[in-house]
Amino acid sequence: MLDIKRLSIEEAKVLIEGATKKSEEMGIPMCIAVCDESGHLIAFDRMNGGKISSISIAIDKAFTGAVARNGTHVYNQLCQPGQPTFGIHVTNGGHFSIIGGGLPVTVDKVIVGGIGISAGTAVQDLEVAEAAVAYFHKKTGYKA
Amino acid sequence: MLDIKRLSIEEAKVLIEGATKKSEEMGIPMCIAVCDESGHLIAFDRMNGGKISSISIAIDKAFTGAVARNGTHVYNQLCQPGQPTFGIHVTNGGHFSIIGGGLPVTVDKVIVGGIGISAGTAVQDLEVAEAAVAYFHKKTGYKA
Amino acid sequence: MLDIKRLSIEEAKVLIEGATKKSEEMGIPMCIAVCDESGHLIAFDRMNGGKISSISIAIDKAFTGAVARNGTHVYNQLCQPGQPTFGIHVTNGGHFSIIGGGLPVTVDKVIVGGIGISAGTAVQDLEVAEAAVAYFHKKTGYKA
Amino acid sequence: MLDIKRLSIEEAKVLIEGATKKSEEMGIPMCIAVCDESGHLIAFDRMNGGKISSISIAIDKAFTGAVARNGTHVYNQLCQPGQPTFGIHVTNGGHFSIIGGGLPVTVDKVIVGGIGISAGTAVQDLEVAEAAVAYFHKKTGYKA
Repeated sequence: MLDIKRLSIEEAKVLIEGATKKSEEMGIPMCIAVCDESGHLIAFDRMNGGKISSISIAIDKAFTGAVARNGTHVYNQLCQPGQPTFGIHVTNGGHFSIIGGGLPVTVDKVIVGGIGISAGTAVQDLEVAEAAVAYFHKKTGYKA
Repeated sequence: MLDIKRLSIEEAKVLIEGATKKSEEMGIPMCIAVCDESGHLIAFDRMNGGKISSISIAIDKAFTGAVARNGTHVYNQLCQPGQPTFGIHVTNGGHFSIIGGGLPVTVDKVIVGGIGISAGTAVQDLEVAEAAVAYFHKKTGYKA
Repeated sequence: MLDIKRLSIEEAKVLIEGATKKSEEMGIPMCIAVCDESGHLIAFDRMNGGKISSISIAIDKAFTGAVARNGTHVYNQLCQPGQPTFGIHVTNGGHFSIIGGGLPVTVDKVIVGGIGISAGTAVQDLEVAEAAVAYFHKKTGYKA
Repeated sequence: MLDIKRLSIEEAKVLIEGATKKSEEMGIPMCIAVCDESGHLIAFDRMNGGKISSISIAIDKAFTGAVARNGTHVYNQLCQPGQPTFGIHVTNGGHFSIIGGGLPVTVDKVIVGGIGISAGTAVQDLEVAEAAVAYFHKKTGYKA
């Protein structure tokens, strides 16, 4: 039998809180998604003014970060034309995101969920995702 | 130019708070979705233990309540075999929900968003949606 | 070689004009779609206040009226549980409409396009579609 | 509560009129789509002879211009292989367009809708979209 560690809704909201704080600091209204270790959505916030096209992108980034077990920006590099992973962006019904801003969330080196940010540039989205994960570890006391 | 009223994220969270309170009271962990008047997701919560199959159902119910401008339970009646609206459940890419638990959210008789609840029976889901909308009007002071 | 008769954009707009007049008379802001004899969209209008969920439904009704060569209300009857055509509503990628309000548009008994109306009840939608087709024949002088 | 400005059908038709005039001047029958600030279709015209494959492309361009808040030609540059936004063209169910010819429509610097043109080259499509937006501002008196 497998024992699985999974983010609770309360913990997911800590991630959203951290992402919101960073987004407000940067002045960019973001779409923020948190999913569990199986890639299923736990919590989502579209800040006032967040782009509508970013709703599904944020959710896809959180999914990918959790289940593909890597930052979506890493897959961006791996999925460039000429690379052997090129093509992965159209898998999973188009929900495999290769745009930076999706990250796995780990506790004691185990992936317990994923976070996805969208509405800024890929670089800004990743910056917010990283800030949210750092905030999560700081506030909960969990080790990455 | 048209003037449109739309729920803010803060107001969407009042709806989620109301739904959560009622769900806890009933002892059923629910998926709770709130969308804007155009059917786009603003906020989502899956309570600890909420069914995974209910994630998309809750989102579809919120969408339908807002943009089809009626409770999803009303469409359930209209869409029964033998009725002229039979078939509407497969429209909108399969996102038109005809299962009770989706409601429009109105302020001064204008639809400003939608709420969708899923994980219980259709009757329980509707009960939670109604409680959430009542809580929203009471807490914000807006009139339905 | 086949010779095909097809609605022009100018003729499609006569259908939209007729549907708009009738909708205004009934006080229901409708989504109005006109497609060609192959089922491809020629013209579309969403009247101010027209339901968002009706955009794709109107387009699907116009498609079905033209290419399945019958009113969508006719298919509603044919597609009831127990009938041999039950199931047709999920064909064509979900775009086969069986809700009243879609009609073929004929000239000299040949189908040259389709019209689809959505936002009211199926009965109201059909009433507007019929009025639009009658207006089209009257204004253009074409015979049905 | 958020206050949103949205194009009316009458205003959408001014955009279509402007696009049609420019298309006729260039001798290219275009597909022309106008959507609201939430990406939902308001009006569509396929000029006589307009490409059938351009119907959905024009609609997707209008959607993207409005909700992703940038010209689709801008995303074409951002989404080239090697760029961090590579991959955005397969998001939003394949409806995120990165082909020039989609633009946001602004009034007083606020996005109130989007326009999408398709049937020519990407450069021609953008030229028509820009002409339509300029015509819209001139005819209505609204400031961009």
